[in-house]
Amino acid sequence: MALFRISFYSTCYQRLTRVNVLLPIDTPLPPGAERDWGPYKTLYLLHGYSGNSDDWLLNSSIAEMSAQFNIAVVMPEGVNGFYVDQPRSGIRGSEYIAKELVAFTRKTFPLSKERGHTLIGGLSMGGYGTLYNALKYGDVFGHAIALSTPVKVLRYESEHEPKDIEFKQAPGFFEALHGDTAKVYETDRNIALHAKQVLDAGLPVTNLYIACGYNDSLVPENRELHEQLLEIGFPHFYEEGPGTHDWPFFSGFMRRGLVHALGEPDIPPHPFWVGATGYNCERGE
Amino acid sequence: MALFRISFYSTCYQRLTRVNVLLPIDTPLPPGAERDWGPYKTLYLLHGYSGNSDDWLLNSSIAEMSAQFNIAVVMPEGVNGFYVDQPRSGIRGSEYIAKELVAFTRKTFPLSKERGHTLIGGLSMGGYGTLYNALKYGDVFGHAIALSTPVKVLRYESEHEPKDIEFKQAPGFFEALHGDTAKVYETDRNIALHAKQVLDAGLPVTNLYIACGYNDSLVPENRELHEQLLEIGFPHFYEEGPGTHDWPFFSGFMRRGLVHALGEPDIPPHPFWVGATGYNCERGE
Amino acid sequence: MALFRISFYSTCYQRLTRVNVLLPIDTPLPPGAERDWGPYKTLYLLHGYSGNSDDWLLNSSIAEMSAQFNIAVVMPEGVNGFYVDQPRSGIRGSEYIAKELVAFTRKTFPLSKERGHTLIGGLSMGGYGTLYNALKYGDVFGHAIALSTPVKVLRYESEHEPKDIEFKQAPGFFEALHGDTAKVYETDRNIALHAKQVLDAGLPVTNLYIACGYNDSLVPENRELHEQLLEIGFPHFYEEGPGTHDWPFFSGFMRRGLVHALGEPDIPPHPFWVGATGYNCERGE
Amino acid sequence: MALFRISFYSTCYQRLTRVNVLLPIDTPLPPGAERDWGPYKTLYLLHGYSGNSDDWLLNSSIAEMSAQFNIAVVMPEGVNGFYVDQPRSGIRGSEYIAKELVAFTRKTFPLSKERGHTLIGGLSMGGYGTLYNALKYGDVFGHAIALSTPVKVLRYESEHEPKDIEFKQAPGFFEALHGDTAKVYETDRNIALHAKQVLDAGLPVTNLYIACGYNDSLVPENRELHEQLLEIGFPHFYEEGPGTHDWPFFSGFMRRGLVHALGEPDIPPHPFWVGATGYNCERGE
Repeated sequence: MALFRISFYSTCYQRLTRVNVLLPIDTPLPPGAERDWGPYKTLYLLHGYSGNSDDWLLNSSIAEMSAQFNIAVVMPEGVNGFYVDQPRSGIRGSEYIAKELVAFTRKTFPLSKERGHTLIGGLSMGGYGTLYNALKYGDVFGHAIALSTPVKVLRYESEHEPKDIEFKQAPGFFEALHGDTAKVYETDRNIALHAKQVLDAGLPVTNLYIACGYNDSLVPENRELHEQLLEIGFPHFYEEGPGTHDWPFFSGFMRRGLVHALGEPDIPPHPFWVGATGYNCERGE
Repeated sequence: MALFRISFYSTCYQRLTRVNVLLPIDTPLPPGAERDWGPYKTLYLLHGYSGNSDDWLLNSSIAEMSAQFNIAVVMPEGVNGFYVDQPRSGIRGSEYIAKELVAFTRKTFPLSKERGHTLIGGLSMGGYGTLYNALKYGDVFGHAIALSTPVKVLRYESEHEPKDIEFKQAPGFFEALHGDTAKVYETDRNIALHAKQVLDAGLPVTNLYIACGYNDSLVPENRELHEQLLEIGFPHFYEEGPGTHDWPFFSGFMRRGLVHALGEPDIPPHPFWVGATGYNCERGE
Repeated sequence: MALFRISFYSTCYQRLTRVNVLLPIDTPLPPGAERDWGPYKTLYLLHGYSGNSDDWLLNSSIAEMSAQFNIAVVMPEGVNGFYVDQPRSGIRGSEYIAKELVAFTRKTFPLSKERGHTLIGGLSMGGYGTLYNALKYGDVFGHAIALSTPVKVLRYESEHEPKDIEFKQAPGFFEALHGDTAKVYETDRNIALHAKQVLDAGLPVTNLYIACGYNDSLVPENRELHEQLLEIGFPHFYEEGPGTHDWPFFSGFMRRGLVHALGEPDIPPHPFWVGATGYNCERGE
Repeated sequence: MALFRISFYSTCYQRLTRVNVLLPIDTPLPPGAERDWGPYKTLYLLHGYSGNSDDWLLNSSIAEMSAQFNIAVVMPEGVNGFYVDQPRSGIRGSEYIAKELVAFTRKTFPLSKERGHTLIGGLSMGGYGTLYNALKYGDVFGHAIALSTPVKVLRYESEHEPKDIEFKQAPGFFEALHGDTAKVYETDRNIALHAKQVLDAGLPVTNLYIACGYNDSLVPENRELHEQLLEIGFPHFYEEGPGTHDWPFFSGFMRRGLVHALGEPDIPPHPFWVGATGYNCERGE
């Protein structure tokens, strides 16, 4: 698996930012097969609060998934920003993901520009970023995979925070992200309301896959979202499964989300899979 | 989990080489606990043929193991060299692992210098490197974890090579590694013979854990080694388990090997484990 | 030169952050010489607005300076935050540099804990971070090297901003950094006032080196600072030189700043310096 | 400047290898200008003995050159192999550079496929690789920039080796690289002979730029090569300049070589160049 650790200047962040990209361009090929070299289906994959662009690489089987599903995987950095545009600081985390990063990666790599080939996914804070941006940019993302999402952004700390670790935001944290917190649920930061706005406006509807672990404290708000989406008739697939807010759940259900979006992959895991790549990369022109 | 991607000059390789290091110095702590900051038990962890120092990071749960077992993990690059000293090229892959790298990492990081706290492990080619160096440097390594090892170095290609992928060494490949291939099984490159030499000379005996998957084509030569070690009375633990020559086996049995060497860890996987690190890193002095 | 690209969890940032470290532990030694392996003098080296922890590595001769002056160099990420504690967002960029990062690197690497061996330096935004933190943490940093500093933090945009590039902060940007911008010059964010507070309180005084290029639009505010420091009697060294706000100036005057702080290095540039490292790394224990 | 740190599987090396790529896709643009997004002219840039793919990044101004000349720069790893195909080990360092790497980077990035837009360059061992591959693959490389080249491969050690550092190859080292060392000067490893073979066969002739420092011990063999090329009428440009075998020479004369190949760049160094990138990256599609 070819891995690209990238640093480039982002206008939306007004600074150099980092992104990791996996491309399945050196995986083993059956004898006689020719590599197609894309354009590749692409998953924009978001990490959670406190993490960075290495998280999915270090903690999940995403490298294997990239090979199996024959997809590019683009892993940006979210700097605890929930992948939204921040009203005051000038940081545009949503525009970055859906516009600047999509444009940058499509210009740089052989990626498909089709909506149906463009996926967004993430865990926890990245699940929020997935739902928010899939709704806001339904024209860009054909599929979305939101795992273990803190749907109620403002209740983040009080509801599912373990008592024994230091993990609370400063008083101004959510205001910096969303503006007036008293009114945040009247805006598109409210996922269910946002979904209704998309339907009402007749905007493109992204194919949503939403999952949460039985033992995750975020289950109630994911169930509630599921009910709300059913109520307004927003098409989506919701499931729960064994697990809590941890990597075995994230990794396993990312795979399930990919199968939901793309179908079972043709390519089996390689029987002699050693290292992060394959053995049969083309030579010459 | 603190990750260090390192490039430094190695005398044994006569060039800059790379090594990745995980240190459990920023994992979550129970309330009121103080971090000990080492010196840490250390696992020198070797990748397989065709791989590099990122392999274990990208394809296994080694980051989580580092946190759970509270061990440093040092992942060098083996450049297809089987971690042996090459008689003609001047490349000293064995001295590099057991002497230069051990010295470099102990001088640089807060690592334990005790033999009982120093482990070596690896998969496939790295399993060979593990057994070879554990025997040669029994004074350095207290424990060894050899997974899915091609014990018969010269029969590598003919015996377990899938037919459908390009993965064969050039005619001079094994000669470059071992010298005269006609006599290689009369030297310490023969693991069973090497083990006998260690016992005969009364040298320090490393605690060996050896495992192979039922469906791995390397099972026969691992069983044979097990029989040979039983015969000469070399203490070791051997087991087989479900799986083939792939990462689910490598990752799962590395964990079993660590439990064999160090016992079950006290630290459970963190219930709110997001990202590659914890949340409670000390501040101030 | 040994280079460590590090990712670790920072409490002050509440997330994984990155830092690059250079250690002169594999540089060439004269025949017969023994390496001392530290504890090393350390330069905490800050990048400018829009940059990241790779900036100094990619654009200056810092690797060579690390070898020549036999110092460790620690290059953190400042995420456009001017290396100050932000009153509302919870981001503590100053505490991170002066306490958490200093503690982390001293616990991890063989670094000197002496104030006289601990330097802070930076360019542009990092020059501001250098002056601010050298004054606030005079007990930590014995020397400071501030290059091409935007001393007047609020006048940043209006005064020295080229007209032809997009480089302006959102309206809430400086408020997020400093709090009430109407009163910011009455606080320690005002460098001259801060310096006076240090003198008045009898706190430890860091040895300041300040430089700016003749053709840098920031020259007036650096001269003004120089005058103010003279007036209050704050010991410092100020110089200007040929150049503008670019890397030849930053790289050249970082070297001058190091000579000012540490004296001319004994070690000449190696006559056969190829690659980023030397050739004579110790082996064995 | 966008930097890509890449790991991918190379068939020629039979393992994962690393390569760094600079693309000038985020540099500042004049107001109103549109970015062309390539296809970019490309410099394949080789490091010296003992180095790796980070060398040019850490020790020269190559990032600035990439921006100024608006060229992609591809920096592979040579693992002390002089960028030739090794007859016995199966390592094909020449095919890797001229075929596999060129194909991989052109398939992955928006690079020009024109011979006149494809440059190869390097220092010391990389200067040898430059000359050797520019001659062997004149159909691929339109321009070559060979700096401070050890032209006499076998006399490497004896002629220009400083006495006080450990830097000598094992007896079998050159045989591993070139085969029978007694006959190596009768093969294409002899650069002057190789050049004559190219002329005699009427093969494409790469535009050669060759330079060496006055104080470099390699000056005599570079002068001799210059004389030999004059004698056989192989078109080239040769110059010497102040300096020795060090980075100020390599960096400065790489720039001169680029001007020789491409002409003076239109783009001046940016007057407010902070960080490794520009400030005006496009947004949206």
